[in-house]
Amino acid sequence: MAEENIIFVGKKPTMNYVLAIVTQFNNDEVNRIVIKARGKAISKAVDIAEITKHKFVQAIEYEGIKLDTEVLEGEKGPSNVSSIEIVLKK
Amino acid sequence: MAEENIIFVGKKPTMNYVLAIVTQFNNDEVNRIVIKARGKAISKAVDIAEITKHKFVQAIEYEGIKLDTEVLEGEKGPSNVSSIEIVLKK
Repeated sequence: MAEENIIFVGKKPTMNYVLAIVTQFNNDEVNRIVIKARGKAISKAVDIAEITKHKFVQAIEYEGIKLDTEVLEGEKGPSNVSSIEIVLKK
Repeated sequence: MAEENIIFVGKKPTMNYVLAIVTQFNNDEVNRIVIKARGKAISKAVDIAEITKHKFVQAIEYEGIKLDTEVLEGEKGPSNVSSIEIVLKK
């Protein structure tokens, strides 16, 4: 069931992701949610985590924050992109 | 002397910050550097940390990564902005 608790941050508005996380945490069985983002979406991932933590689910804490570099295969060959994983724990 | 080892990420190109960090780490007395960024610059801060770690100073590791929310006083009143602090340790 772990996969259900991963949020991939893309082009939707910030609050869509916040509400998705809050909804999941309101399910008693969900104790951990991982927010994942790459490239420019990293800033949005941090916004999402902070808004969730401060305005909606005050009992959550950061269990871990991991930075990494991923190699993307594009038409012009491989390119590197930074990524972030933020683990929220209830 | 701690203040000298803080890098504030702004509008300069990513590689400017990477080179500033590499230069500081080449000083034997510098063992820790803190990268700080707010808002949209957070993605760039992660790029800077990852490029420094993987391409230039392979001995470094992440000592800590902290997310926070800062209140900025603007003309239209206070607004919240997310921030990141990445501590690099040699």
